[in-house]
Amino acid sequence: MLEDLKKEVYEANMQLPKLDLVTFTWGNVSGIDREKGLFVIKPSGVPYEKLTPDDMVVVDLKGEVVEGKLNPSSDTPTHTVLYNAFPDIGGIVHTHSPWAVAFASANLDVPALNTTAADTFYGDVPVSEPLTKEQIERAYEEETGNVIVKTFKDRGLDHEAVPAVLVSQHGPFTWGKTPAHAVYNAKVLEVVAEIDYHAMTLTHADCHVPQYLLDKHYDRKHGKDAYYGQGKARRVKFAADAKNRF
Amino acid sequence: MLEDLKKEVYEANMQLPKLDLVTFTWGNVSGIDREKGLFVIKPSGVPYEKLTPDDMVVVDLKGEVVEGKLNPSSDTPTHTVLYNAFPDIGGIVHTHSPWAVAFASANLDVPALNTTAADTFYGDVPVSEPLTKEQIERAYEEETGNVIVKTFKDRGLDHEAVPAVLVSQHGPFTWGKTPAHAVYNAKVLEVVAEIDYHAMTLTHADCHVPQYLLDKHYDRKHGKDAYYGQGKARRVKFAADAKNRF
Amino acid sequence: MLEDLKKEVYEANMQLPKLDLVTFTWGNVSGIDREKGLFVIKPSGVPYEKLTPDDMVVVDLKGEVVEGKLNPSSDTPTHTVLYNAFPDIGGIVHTHSPWAVAFASANLDVPALNTTAADTFYGDVPVSEPLTKEQIERAYEEETGNVIVKTFKDRGLDHEAVPAVLVSQHGPFTWGKTPAHAVYNAKVLEVVAEIDYHAMTLTHADCHVPQYLLDKHYDRKHGKDAYYGQGKARRVKFAADAKNRF
Amino acid sequence: MLEDLKKEVYEANMQLPKLDLVTFTWGNVSGIDREKGLFVIKPSGVPYEKLTPDDMVVVDLKGEVVEGKLNPSSDTPTHTVLYNAFPDIGGIVHTHSPWAVAFASANLDVPALNTTAADTFYGDVPVSEPLTKEQIERAYEEETGNVIVKTFKDRGLDHEAVPAVLVSQHGPFTWGKTPAHAVYNAKVLEVVAEIDYHAMTLTHADCHVPQYLLDKHYDRKHGKDAYYGQGKARRVKFAADAKNRF
Repeated sequence: MLEDLKKEVYEANMQLPKLDLVTFTWGNVSGIDREKGLFVIKPSGVPYEKLTPDDMVVVDLKGEVVEGKLNPSSDTPTHTVLYNAFPDIGGIVHTHSPWAVAFASANLDVPALNTTAADTFYGDVPVSEPLTKEQIERAYEEETGNVIVKTFKDRGLDHEAVPAVLVSQHGPFTWGKTPAHAVYNAKVLEVVAEIDYHAMTLTHADCHVPQYLLDKHYDRKHGKDAYYGQGKARRVKFAADAKNRF
Repeated sequence: MLEDLKKEVYEANMQLPKLDLVTFTWGNVSGIDREKGLFVIKPSGVPYEKLTPDDMVVVDLKGEVVEGKLNPSSDTPTHTVLYNAFPDIGGIVHTHSPWAVAFASANLDVPALNTTAADTFYGDVPVSEPLTKEQIERAYEEETGNVIVKTFKDRGLDHEAVPAVLVSQHGPFTWGKTPAHAVYNAKVLEVVAEIDYHAMTLTHADCHVPQYLLDKHYDRKHGKDAYYGQGKARRVKFAADAKNRF
Repeated sequence: MLEDLKKEVYEANMQLPKLDLVTFTWGNVSGIDREKGLFVIKPSGVPYEKLTPDDMVVVDLKGEVVEGKLNPSSDTPTHTVLYNAFPDIGGIVHTHSPWAVAFASANLDVPALNTTAADTFYGDVPVSEPLTKEQIERAYEEETGNVIVKTFKDRGLDHEAVPAVLVSQHGPFTWGKTPAHAVYNAKVLEVVAEIDYHAMTLTHADCHVPQYLLDKHYDRKHGKDAYYGQGKARRVKFAADAKNRF
Repeated sequence: MLEDLKKEVYEANMQLPKLDLVTFTWGNVSGIDREKGLFVIKPSGVPYEKLTPDDMVVVDLKGEVVEGKLNPSSDTPTHTVLYNAFPDIGGIVHTHSPWAVAFASANLDVPALNTTAADTFYGDVPVSEPLTKEQIERAYEEETGNVIVKTFKDRGLDHEAVPAVLVSQHGPFTWGKTPAHAVYNAKVLEVVAEIDYHAMTLTHADCHVPQYLLDKHYDRKHGKDAYYGQGKARRVKFAADAKNRF
């Protein structure tokens, strides 16, 4: 069942330790088959070096396990909320990567201070408001998804243009068109948080990039006339096996 | 004598360099056989790449060497005090891991600012009070153990819920049900100290997590209805060889 | 066409991930054949592990592609401007290396605080002024080159003595006699930025090295009586294959 | 000539990149044969991966090359001064390791804030006063040695108890009974500088360890009744090949 998607999600999960985004088992990637309305997610607490594509768990859009020998990630309800709220995304990543968690701990957005940020995030990556006692006690992981969706709504953000969030005092969730894109965004967020930390402790000046720089950098990679890389307006296509590559 | 425990303690020691927790020989792991009242500990000052299970030293609960060709770790009296004071722990780790030592040097607790901390530590990891001149001159390593026990008593802390301490101006000791659990806790402490440092230098706001978040995260991993991982309330058991894994 | 130069540029590009200067595809190296008036540059957005010498793109000094199956780096117009403005340089590097980008984000020069800097940079590495809205919208990458040239002119800097710049809120460009020298300078800049960050956050004192120390260190490596290494005034020549080595 | 010492010095040099103490060729180790009054040192500017024991250069205590196909390190006059001034040392190391250079750039001692420092350094590692214009122009590398010796004399420091120094706005020199011991001290200094930086930016309190802690830690490793490791008062000797090990 969903063998190709399981393999794709497995491979995206295995990128997390390679990209230094996880300690122990602290991260998970999922990917969705929109036609079938089912998503595939890493099992909970299994070490990466023991993981196989066959360990992936299949879950429906109500968050119920449809197939799998192992328990799905404890963050499965968060993924479920996000897939329902953001109908155009294909993959989701959660990690405890240390630079992003430092900003989440301090309840600070990861600001757009440079072109490295602007190439991927069309503005600051927001930190959510904290979950209330009632939310945490009622349905913690589901409410984590709800607070992410509320953050984007309240702040008028486009989840396609800013495909990442920090859950307050917790850590980053990122998403993308595919599981691999979501992993890419998780790594960019970590690198941007590292750079931002050093810039913000070097100067107290506001170093946000101007709107026109943000527009330019985001558009040259993601706009309809994008000209970075070897993309659709270009002469060369990626090889067939490149779907999962960056 | 205690061949299985020697192997287990050896393997836990070898995790320290793999997890980037030690420079040179600056760390040690021990594990105890509670029925026999004997513990096994790394020899003093032997490089990890030369270490073998057979080098491990067997010590009794008075701190006397029972078996071993090599001198036990110079920290053996500290381990002895902790095994006597905390009768339910099965393994102890000491390192000079740099982020934890930075907090110990500054005489600061490693605070619980995020869920990464709360998943393992039910509150701040305390720094001990400094040892006095008299304590240091009388029996330094033994008094190091005493000051740890006193810290937990004075501050009303549960050593099972907070399985770690910083000895003032020295460094971290962690413990757990097994040597491998104690190593896991040593790594978590190092990662949490790194994240905390960056959060604390980004903002002067008090970022402690609220008590209900602490309760939730600790309980979902360690409470009687824990639902993280593939644990006892779950459908799948760890493989037989998983005792030493995280 | 230009097979030797393609190989040299390919090898210099492959040094970027080895020297921890790039994440994903965020960097590029070019090298020029001054007699032919053509330069060779990395294609845009191709992962380093897939790159081959044959993928390199040949471009003329008007920035037009002369040969190549792939699109050249999106930064090609910046390289073109620099090769025209600095007629004695043989290679150019652009990266998003995180310490240099932190200074660029904070709009700060990387100051010469120590001999590590002085060995390579005869003074502070300047940050450019920001590009205006008009510059960004007209011809972004070309204007990036123009603002670099203007920075050196306005501040009276010698691009041979200070072979590096930070483009404001973007990142570093470095250059040198060969592509390999430009890569060397990119690494030195990153290391110096890292050291400077820590020195500048340890003390508020002005720690610039005095002019006579700058003179001495720069001269002993680059002056006409240079005596560092096994250079021209020395008894031993580098092996034939050393052109691309440091 | 001095084949064993050349091999020992070569192996100590090769530890520098393994211990992450050098970028490119920015470091050198020497070792002395006191009976012959000759020392062996790394050639200048040769990459570590190309180095062989046979490349080592033999120098006498006037700083004259006695044997060698290559130029000796440009820092040879500094080594010469130190071997003459400190007649009991057997090896010297110079690096540009980044944490130590950050303190040198800020003209700050690396203070003894914890037992990690106290195990190796009996007090703060001093930063020298800056060299004057006249010293730099007269004989830079020789005067670098002189300022180190003067720093120890002026501050009443024992170079055996504190086997390291920072040359102001330059970087660390360390020494020891053997080349390998000097390398060990270079690594400890780098680790201690890293920890100190974080402690000093976490708190403005003076965190120097008390004198009695300094005494205790230094004595248990280096005093006549040292009991750390498997040393002379112990039952086990190091294997014959351990001379060059830590």
